[in-house]
Amino acid sequence: MKNLWILLLLIALPLHSQNGDEKQIRAIFDAALTQGKAYDWLNHLTNQIGGRLSGSVQAEQAVQYTKLQMEELGLDKVWLQPVMVPKWVRGTPEFAYMETKPGLTTNLPVCALGGSVSTPQGGVKAGLVEVQGLEDLADLGRDKIAGKIVFFNRPMDPTLINTFEAYSGCVDQRYSGAEEAAKYGAAGIIVRSMNLRLDDYPHAGSMSYGETSVEDRIPAAAISTNGAELLSTSLKLNPDIKFYFKLNCRQLEDVQSYNVIGEIRGSKYPDEIILVGGHLDSWDLGDGAHDDGAGCVQSMEVLRLLQKTGYRPERTMRAVLFMNEENGLRGANAYATEARSKGEKHILALESDSGGFSPRGFSFDCSAQQFDQISAWKPLFEPYLIHQFIKGGSGADVAPLKDEVAVLAGLSPDSQRYFDHHHAENDTFEHVNKRELELGAAAMASLVYLIDHYGFAADRNIKGR
Amino acid sequence: MKNLWILLLLIALPLHSQNGDEKQIRAIFDAALTQGKAYDWLNHLTNQIGGRLSGSVQAEQAVQYTKLQMEELGLDKVWLQPVMVPKWVRGTPEFAYMETKPGLTTNLPVCALGGSVSTPQGGVKAGLVEVQGLEDLADLGRDKIAGKIVFFNRPMDPTLINTFEAYSGCVDQRYSGAEEAAKYGAAGIIVRSMNLRLDDYPHAGSMSYGETSVEDRIPAAAISTNGAELLSTSLKLNPDIKFYFKLNCRQLEDVQSYNVIGEIRGSKYPDEIILVGGHLDSWDLGDGAHDDGAGCVQSMEVLRLLQKTGYRPERTMRAVLFMNEENGLRGANAYATEARSKGEKHILALESDSGGFSPRGFSFDCSAQQFDQISAWKPLFEPYLIHQFIKGGSGADVAPLKDEVAVLAGLSPDSQRYFDHHHAENDTFEHVNKRELELGAAAMASLVYLIDHYGFAADRNIKGR
Repeated sequence: MKNLWILLLLIALPLHSQNGDEKQIRAIFDAALTQGKAYDWLNHLTNQIGGRLSGSVQAEQAVQYTKLQMEELGLDKVWLQPVMVPKWVRGTPEFAYMETKPGLTTNLPVCALGGSVSTPQGGVKAGLVEVQGLEDLADLGRDKIAGKIVFFNRPMDPTLINTFEAYSGCVDQRYSGAEEAAKYGAAGIIVRSMNLRLDDYPHAGSMSYGETSVEDRIPAAAISTNGAELLSTSLKLNPDIKFYFKLNCRQLEDVQSYNVIGEIRGSKYPDEIILVGGHLDSWDLGDGAHDDGAGCVQSMEVLRLLQKTGYRPERTMRAVLFMNEENGLRGANAYATEARSKGEKHILALESDSGGFSPRGFSFDCSAQQFDQISAWKPLFEPYLIHQFIKGGSGADVAPLKDEVAVLAGLSPDSQRYFDHHHAENDTFEHVNKRELELGAAAMASLVYLIDHYGFAADRNIKGR
Repeated sequence: MKNLWILLLLIALPLHSQNGDEKQIRAIFDAALTQGKAYDWLNHLTNQIGGRLSGSVQAEQAVQYTKLQMEELGLDKVWLQPVMVPKWVRGTPEFAYMETKPGLTTNLPVCALGGSVSTPQGGVKAGLVEVQGLEDLADLGRDKIAGKIVFFNRPMDPTLINTFEAYSGCVDQRYSGAEEAAKYGAAGIIVRSMNLRLDDYPHAGSMSYGETSVEDRIPAAAISTNGAELLSTSLKLNPDIKFYFKLNCRQLEDVQSYNVIGEIRGSKYPDEIILVGGHLDSWDLGDGAHDDGAGCVQSMEVLRLLQKTGYRPERTMRAVLFMNEENGLRGANAYATEARSKGEKHILALESDSGGFSPRGFSFDCSAQQFDQISAWKPLFEPYLIHQFIKGGSGADVAPLKDEVAVLAGLSPDSQRYFDHHHAENDTFEHVNKRELELGAAAMASLVYLIDHYGFAADRNIKGR
């Protein structure tokens, strides 16, 4: 008889638990979709504050605003982690044209790449060399490049379903184009915007001069995809076209800024930290709604949804809004450094930095055993169509934690629209759908709940529980 | 030795076939994403032609345009199937306000529901009764309703992940509200727009007077969600608010229109028809980009993608652009009637009428055995993240074929954004993402390819092959 009871108990326990999980997750989604705050927060961050480039007044306003909002949630602790950030300013106006014959010019939409030096005050005007990538430079050699403007025009591969892969396949042109072209004496570079769509928005983004000495640095700008197409076609008709561009950007002294951190202390295992985060800085052209206002407000919303549904976390929950992901990663590095020095133990670091689009699932950087455990939760996410769990990368801000954390993860929204907006003037609030944003926050909160509630099997062994 | 060869053959065959399918599907997606025509066609349908309400000049232009485009594809046959359609016209202006005190008015955005009668020339002005649904009318009774305007204000349920379910849960107010309220002597009705978002767009849609005699028909309008919220709040503060609205719509005589049909004749089983379709008509407020310009151009694109990839269909492939889905279903019924009278055998009828958003999978109305066969193809759709195969409904235009067809199916795009645009002024081209549209077309073409290539097991038995 006793054995029968134990058997019944063994059968009943997982069922009960499964039901409890389903209910908790349903409660999270209901709260997100009916009483969500993420969209209102994002409205303020974008429409009241705007683009939040590191070191800008807007970035500082965003720090103060999100700190205040987290304080109003009544978390156990909200604080600012100081970090010095680079301050690069765009200056205005930026301007470019192609000259097909002397005096016959067509304006083209460009923007300075983040970190670029300015052109001389009168701008740069030179002939063009179109290339498909960094590797073309050596083939052409100094003879054909010196004094010219190098036009990097390899487009994103439209056949890749995951548009982030298409981005990865192109972004070396933007990041290293100036450094490499300078080695051959180029006068400047322009790079086709990392955008799958043909439109008139130039897309900013970071670039590096690497080891290039200050006097050898050349100005670097992005050109819209339509502009790149027009330029390329025109060059085929007339290779002697001249290109003119003028940038007014400047690199100023580093300034003080902050990561914004809010925390609910764990009731059972306060020393085990579950981190959700995004980055608070953005590029300056749009208002940084998708990149990464969405990830910030979703991370704050995760804590709020756990509160709203009456869930008391066993582990310490932290929302971290990192500063300076776009052009330095200073906030992420400062956070990881402090975590390491304090010996903090993170069991999950989950970032949302792929836009506020309809969530499809998560990407996990973890052991096979951990992935098996997580994958067993997929049925709980199926009713919400957010059950695409893959092994892969996480996010730029949580990656430096790799040695301090059991599992790194990233929210994976549908990627089709992301690069239409990424780093451009049209990354704005009206392109974020409220429900899509809320579903992402709810998915994150659900994953966080499960990991908090169950921990990781291997992890428990380590701790001897 | 011979047995070994047979064994190897048995192992190799499915592998070869699987590889062939993977290659064909990859070729379809590559063609859609690099040489797609769907977006250009949609641009013309929406920006050059515009909203295509049945019986309108624009609907006629759309018939001629799509016929010409299909002819230019060099299909085996392109033709128009005549069908008489209702012609309801909105007239202008439409106008509404609430009057909180005599002379103190606030304008509210409304639009006539499709099929509504006009108000008297001076409009209708009356007190309001707010209800949450049809069932409230009997509780209130004639005393409280007669002479009043009934305000149906039950919102879509935001907790439903599939927004079409939320729509189904509300649309009875729009469809039958006037018929039911007229029974209690109401002077008119206004219905909260079927929209999950709070905004200022009234959403049109069909309604019916059922058996209501002509003299008892009352005018019916939709009000924007923001307008509904304001009105409801104002009514709570002051139940004596008056509402005024003026509509100028008219029902004219039926006019001649057409379904547009293009066909590639099957090389092996020409009598077995695989149909892909959408509806060419739309509401008149926007330009009908998502509803259902997207489905039309995707259906045309399916035939084109099969051509482009050099696939010669074994069965007859038809793209059918149905006329009058929105307010009559005359085209769908005419098509089904003719198919029945001719004894045509359809083995698949696949509709795209849920918007041109990122495709998630398909919904199938078929036998368990057929669903098993189809489900076995899911791994082929996984690389494209379009592998959510469920049993469920198909589409309004293909449903009348139910008795003539083996499998009914519908493309299932992500549903989160659909009702932001559905039947409203903002269902426009710029809200369609090119890649999302193309992925939908490619998914449809891939499914069509598989069904053409393999047929249905049960079906083959019936035919004795």
